[in-house]
Amino acid sequence: MDASAQIGVTGLAVMGRNLARNFARNGYTVALHNRTAARTRALVEEFGREGSFVPCESAEEFVAALERPRRLMIMVKAGDATDAVIDEFAPLLEPGDMIIDGGNAHFADTRRREKALRERGIHFVGTGVSGGEEGALHGPSIMPGGSTESYTVLGPMLEKISAHVEGEPCCTHIGTDGAGHFVKMVHNGIEYADMQLIAEAYHLLRDVADYTPAEIAEIFRRWNKGRLNSYLIEITAEVLAHTDPATDAPFVDIVRDAAEQKGTGRWTVQTALDLGSPVTAIAQATFARVASSRSELRAAYRPLPGGTAQELHRHEAERFTEQVEQALYASKVIAYDQGWTMIRDGAAEYGWDIDLGEVAKIWRGGCIIRAAFLDRIRAAHAANRDLVSLLAEDRFAAEVADAQVPWREVVAIAAHRGIPVPAFSASLAFYDTLRSQHLPAALIQGLRDFFGAHTYHRTDRDGSYHTHWAESGRPESRTDI
Amino acid sequence: MDASAQIGVTGLAVMGRNLARNFARNGYTVALHNRTAARTRALVEEFGREGSFVPCESAEEFVAALERPRRLMIMVKAGDATDAVIDEFAPLLEPGDMIIDGGNAHFADTRRREKALRERGIHFVGTGVSGGEEGALHGPSIMPGGSTESYTVLGPMLEKISAHVEGEPCCTHIGTDGAGHFVKMVHNGIEYADMQLIAEAYHLLRDVADYTPAEIAEIFRRWNKGRLNSYLIEITAEVLAHTDPATDAPFVDIVRDAAEQKGTGRWTVQTALDLGSPVTAIAQATFARVASSRSELRAAYRPLPGGTAQELHRHEAERFTEQVEQALYASKVIAYDQGWTMIRDGAAEYGWDIDLGEVAKIWRGGCIIRAAFLDRIRAAHAANRDLVSLLAEDRFAAEVADAQVPWREVVAIAAHRGIPVPAFSASLAFYDTLRSQHLPAALIQGLRDFFGAHTYHRTDRDGSYHTHWAESGRPESRTDI
Repeated sequence: MDASAQIGVTGLAVMGRNLARNFARNGYTVALHNRTAARTRALVEEFGREGSFVPCESAEEFVAALERPRRLMIMVKAGDATDAVIDEFAPLLEPGDMIIDGGNAHFADTRRREKALRERGIHFVGTGVSGGEEGALHGPSIMPGGSTESYTVLGPMLEKISAHVEGEPCCTHIGTDGAGHFVKMVHNGIEYADMQLIAEAYHLLRDVADYTPAEIAEIFRRWNKGRLNSYLIEITAEVLAHTDPATDAPFVDIVRDAAEQKGTGRWTVQTALDLGSPVTAIAQATFARVASSRSELRAAYRPLPGGTAQELHRHEAERFTEQVEQALYASKVIAYDQGWTMIRDGAAEYGWDIDLGEVAKIWRGGCIIRAAFLDRIRAAHAANRDLVSLLAEDRFAAEVADAQVPWREVVAIAAHRGIPVPAFSASLAFYDTLRSQHLPAALIQGLRDFFGAHTYHRTDRDGSYHTHWAESGRPESRTDI
Repeated sequence: MDASAQIGVTGLAVMGRNLARNFARNGYTVALHNRTAARTRALVEEFGREGSFVPCESAEEFVAALERPRRLMIMVKAGDATDAVIDEFAPLLEPGDMIIDGGNAHFADTRRREKALRERGIHFVGTGVSGGEEGALHGPSIMPGGSTESYTVLGPMLEKISAHVEGEPCCTHIGTDGAGHFVKMVHNGIEYADMQLIAEAYHLLRDVADYTPAEIAEIFRRWNKGRLNSYLIEITAEVLAHTDPATDAPFVDIVRDAAEQKGTGRWTVQTALDLGSPVTAIAQATFARVASSRSELRAAYRPLPGGTAQELHRHEAERFTEQVEQALYASKVIAYDQGWTMIRDGAAEYGWDIDLGEVAKIWRGGCIIRAAFLDRIRAAHAANRDLVSLLAEDRFAAEVADAQVPWREVVAIAAHRGIPVPAFSASLAFYDTLRSQHLPAALIQGLRDFFGAHTYHRTDRDGSYHTHWAESGRPESRTDI
């Protein structure tokens, strides 16, 4: 066998299979390998005519089929399975070869693996791939980490199979080692927040404005023509418009209201806590899913009284719908801003040179949070490389300022009516926290100094101080202690 | 030297020193050891007359001074220092001896250490100690984990030096291995939430009702006579009443409003995410501290517009004050309920037999969240061992039900006025989430099935389903896949 394949894919479950087909459809010769060879044969049988495949039965055969430097993509379950596959193939590789992990690995694992393989001269490229099965086949958003050197060889291939928006690929070199998987994790965290905000908007329209799911589908369709235009808004309309064929009931009414998760929202919040990144909307979205699944707690709380209901007239319902659009948009800007702050914090912590505008650019297509909106985030960062926050950009600031009165109104109505809006209200609280001239954090510092002698800083002079609470109440400088 | 000391303390910084003095004052002979012997000598010189101390210079001398089974308490910085001290002393001990770690260790580290030492026949007793310097000296709340066998020997000593409430010690055997440090961690998480709720109440009284810090101190003093009676409410009044001697300004106005933290709030939220415990109030409290310290974000948001201000008449301010008390109380019940749920979840996950009523009992004195309120939590759990939630107990349920209208009013006013109340609103959203008959989590499940084929459950039949969205919209059972 001659080494003719430009890329090899091992792990041919649906994501691996679709990425392999995507490479082949784009003219690359693709070596295929799977733990059970039946899957490899099935792929060639079913899709062999789409391009040039080299099916391989053994690991040795697979490695021998690859052009040098070898580019070996592993698409297996994140965790121990990934380590097992690395341990299997790394001894067969040579310095300069590349292992690309396209699974949903935790970025800390990617950092560990990259370091270990780098010492053996092998490039390990942890790569975030977003867009699900369909994205993998037709063009995902791709977030590769790893060395700059590896991107020189690998980048053009990944860019070619990625989604394209206005002729530009949804793929860029994010940064070294685990940067790609880190940014993919934050993408998923933002996705949690976005979906929770959409769910709260739906809940309000349903229970306050008394619209049917079909009517709300129409509202989302209308919103999708405006600034909220995005894949998630689009498919929300689809899901809400859907009727369950088995019962003729609105689909959303026959689905059990206990949200599940696969862990990337949790990872995002846990990492944000380590970085000191206040991702409150993502946190509330993650906990809202958790709470919905705690049936024993829901049973305990169910008898408790709620807010006051009050029917809205048609024109009031329409006005309320416009207010909800404003609240949803403002909350979304905050949630995305929190995500970008976290990427900036991660870059600073781990020494990644991440172009924040490029991140927005490659999320415009292929991935779940793809949206017109991201083009504006890209432009804001491109115009100002030191942009600290979206809210520091004139147009976003003006939009949120315009939205703030209806946003407040919606949060207040939800409180009165007993509709839970954890993400709407966390976003508003975040806006008001950062906007405040004086925060009661000063009192918290005072309490900490009182019970634990933790010291505080003063507004009128530098240094650390402790007050002798029990005695004179006299402050003492602790700066030099 | 004869082995005469019932307990040894190594690590004589302020916490270790005060615990050693506490043991001595209670009639125990205490062996003392510190890396630098000067500290040991200073302790004996200054406090030697308080009781019976055996100062030791070397590790060998220290171990030789202890009665068998040896009880050796380490009071060093959590982390590597703890491992170093264990590595130093463990080889000098014999099977049946006990190492007590009274530092602020992460419970996962405690589990690891307990396992390693158990294999060598040594009891490792990770012990939460709350109450700060003063508590350590005069009686802390003590939360020992480790083996039941170790508690038989050690328990009576720890109970003796602990705080006492109505004749009962604030110390109990929490559970095996890391249970003590786990429960101490959750204690601190609850403390974060409690302080944030207090800070929000203060902020509202200051900015909505326009009271001065001195007036708000009076309000907290009054509240401290009612159901909110607690150490934190008491010292809030002290801090707010305090005038800075250097400037004659209210103390709280000269403290920089950037809250700091030492990490246990962060640990609590990270662990809660792993356990699936929805601790939203603790999470919002932790992130509120983080946000207050992000000066670059605060600078970016500061120019943005806020809510509408409106002066309150005197009687309106008084009415508002009563509403804030109701909101604070209801939010506090929710925050504590979330903490207890997390303890229940931790016990289930790690196989600890934790008596939830006993946890409330030992927090009534000695620790930072000590409060009359905890006696009622104790009673609720004592009356019903299977209590799933405080809100399932009649009296708590009735109180929160009574509070809910003013609670909603306060959250709504805060939204309109632009006062950030992340913990008040997270608690209300949690209440409304769990209370809701139907949650929009059903829509989230629909979206996840649409873009990722993640499947959903139905309300009308068992099993997992996936809808063929692109084609017929027909649902297909995935249960047997």
